[in-house]
Amino acid sequence: MTSTIQDVARVAGVSVSTVSNVLNGRTDRMRSETLDRVKSAIATLEYRPSKLAQQLKTGHTPLLGLLVPSLTNPMYGHMAREIESYAQQKYEYRLLIGSTYRDRTQEIAFIEDLLAHGVRRVIVISSLADERHLESAVERGMVVVSYDRGATPGKRSRVSHVMPDNYAAARLATSHLIAQGHQRIAFVTVAGMTMSRSAKIDGFHAAADEAGLRDLAQILDGGALDEYGDGVIAEVGRATAHRIAAMADRPTGLVALNDLMAIGLIAGLREVGLQVPQDVSVVGMDGIYLAGLSNPSLSTVQLPVPEMMRAMVDRAMQAEAPLDASSSDQVLHSGRLVVRESVAAPPVQQRQVHVQTSQEKTAS
Amino acid sequence: MTSTIQDVARVAGVSVSTVSNVLNGRTDRMRSETLDRVKSAIATLEYRPSKLAQQLKTGHTPLLGLLVPSLTNPMYGHMAREIESYAQQKYEYRLLIGSTYRDRTQEIAFIEDLLAHGVRRVIVISSLADERHLESAVERGMVVVSYDRGATPGKRSRVSHVMPDNYAAARLATSHLIAQGHQRIAFVTVAGMTMSRSAKIDGFHAAADEAGLRDLAQILDGGALDEYGDGVIAEVGRATAHRIAAMADRPTGLVALNDLMAIGLIAGLREVGLQVPQDVSVVGMDGIYLAGLSNPSLSTVQLPVPEMMRAMVDRAMQAEAPLDASSSDQVLHSGRLVVRESVAAPPVQQRQVHVQTSQEKTAS
Repeated sequence: MTSTIQDVARVAGVSVSTVSNVLNGRTDRMRSETLDRVKSAIATLEYRPSKLAQQLKTGHTPLLGLLVPSLTNPMYGHMAREIESYAQQKYEYRLLIGSTYRDRTQEIAFIEDLLAHGVRRVIVISSLADERHLESAVERGMVVVSYDRGATPGKRSRVSHVMPDNYAAARLATSHLIAQGHQRIAFVTVAGMTMSRSAKIDGFHAAADEAGLRDLAQILDGGALDEYGDGVIAEVGRATAHRIAAMADRPTGLVALNDLMAIGLIAGLREVGLQVPQDVSVVGMDGIYLAGLSNPSLSTVQLPVPEMMRAMVDRAMQAEAPLDASSSDQVLHSGRLVVRESVAAPPVQQRQVHVQTSQEKTAS
Repeated sequence: MTSTIQDVARVAGVSVSTVSNVLNGRTDRMRSETLDRVKSAIATLEYRPSKLAQQLKTGHTPLLGLLVPSLTNPMYGHMAREIESYAQQKYEYRLLIGSTYRDRTQEIAFIEDLLAHGVRRVIVISSLADERHLESAVERGMVVVSYDRGATPGKRSRVSHVMPDNYAAARLATSHLIAQGHQRIAFVTVAGMTMSRSAKIDGFHAAADEAGLRDLAQILDGGALDEYGDGVIAEVGRATAHRIAAMADRPTGLVALNDLMAIGLIAGLREVGLQVPQDVSVVGMDGIYLAGLSNPSLSTVQLPVPEMMRAMVDRAMQAEAPLDASSSDQVLHSGRLVVRESVAAPPVQQRQVHVQTSQEKTAS
């Protein structure tokens, strides 16, 4: 175990502040006998002041900025943890973190603050279509890695992009439903188009088209998220499930934007008396650990989170932003289908449920 | 909407770097015509450089340190989000965050780094019994707020403590089971005793003793967490459920250490063919939003997270650490019981299940 400044203080029989003064060269008012005791303890314990202290002296700020849509979504918690542990172990960097709710103004404000703090590396999980504010940060000396969207085709960019293959993930999820016999299928999303959502919708349509189901495949938009952002995406799923139950020709198979949405859909379907997977099948994307704990457990496309996070940290730690990051160096990380319990063959007959409409609620 | 440095650059027709140079007084090589255009744009747009830039000039680092056991547990994600948004809105502070797995060495290393970064305020979510390293941080100029444990009775401390009433929460949860008729009850925890776990166990025993169930109430320790810390506490719950199912006189009512453990218990019981609440009732503590989405939905003791987080931030923002924070100023925040579906009367007869032991698994 590495020794700490506390150990040095204990062995030398002085306070931690005294050791700190020695380490920082503030020894002019110190008795030489005290100074000797501290130096001797440092030698005995082979204590090394942290690399951080040295970096700070050389003008580097060993902090990595991380912008996430919301820490309330366990997927981002998981990603933050992977980024944190890798950045710390490999580069001795700490995380300066913020939730920005995919809001451009909040992202700009956060990046301003990072620059003011001397932070020169940032990972942005946002997937907003407009990345001019990130390009602008690069101009000002920031190395920027953007997750979950590629560079705009044909456009030069100095922002690095690391992303899962969202198109393939959605296609895989959709094909899984189709292979079980589903024809009336829907992709359930939220309001607000990001690059990753757009790619997923394309993948959904591609799988439907291949199976000749173009007319039966639909996009259901659950509406806007409140201030909690992606954290309450499950609530949107729950509300959307109520809407789905009330549809005349409701879909029998649902592809959820992500696992948290899927968990909300399953909860909402249960509330209105529909069983998953007997009445409706649901498949997610992400592969959060909670997917394996839900009832029924959730079939999903598992993304390679640790690999992607490490790739992002490595790019963020490059000496400076690349001259052009738009081209060949992008790797699409593939997900894999994890089959659990939430998908089965479609029901022979549609179960009738009575869903209270908002008028009825007001009246009762 | 407040204008940004980008807006200024656009209106002045210069690069963002040029505006940044003007703001930081690096104008010696600038043409006076350019300088005038930037100044005029700043005036027109009423652009104000962030309070942060000013604070940094005065030597304050507007960063709040936050140590959590693991960002993978949605409870800590929720807490981090509340802390972040309040610290940002009220004090314009950003978060420097780290997972420390309730490991004292990691906490010490993190606090060292915070001090090296000039951070002087930290919130520690850990509940370790030994807080000497936190006291030592106070000595070195840090304002420290510790969550989820009180000061040691009779001992002076300069660490502020904010905590839920864990004793009352566990007692409330346990009484809820007893009121439904449960007698064989168990408290399910993990290895490693923290102040909060200890208080919860005391609350559990108090409720059992009042009901004359001392001999029927037991503590089940699910064992150690792996490196992911609290994030996979659900996995410990799942494994413990398998053990419980194999017990001859298994408990009919379980009080889980927290909601994530409860979600794992429910998943594990289902795997071995036991139904919640028909065969076994489960009650949690915390009140994470996922508790309302599980199947069955989880009855739990809801803690007042936003209020507690705001109280911690306010304390952390005090000018300096109090001379003695051990006494009267501690407020215990009470939880409230949220009754959902996971608790019912105990079964008349114990359902027989066959649980594979590890020997059998090896053999098959």
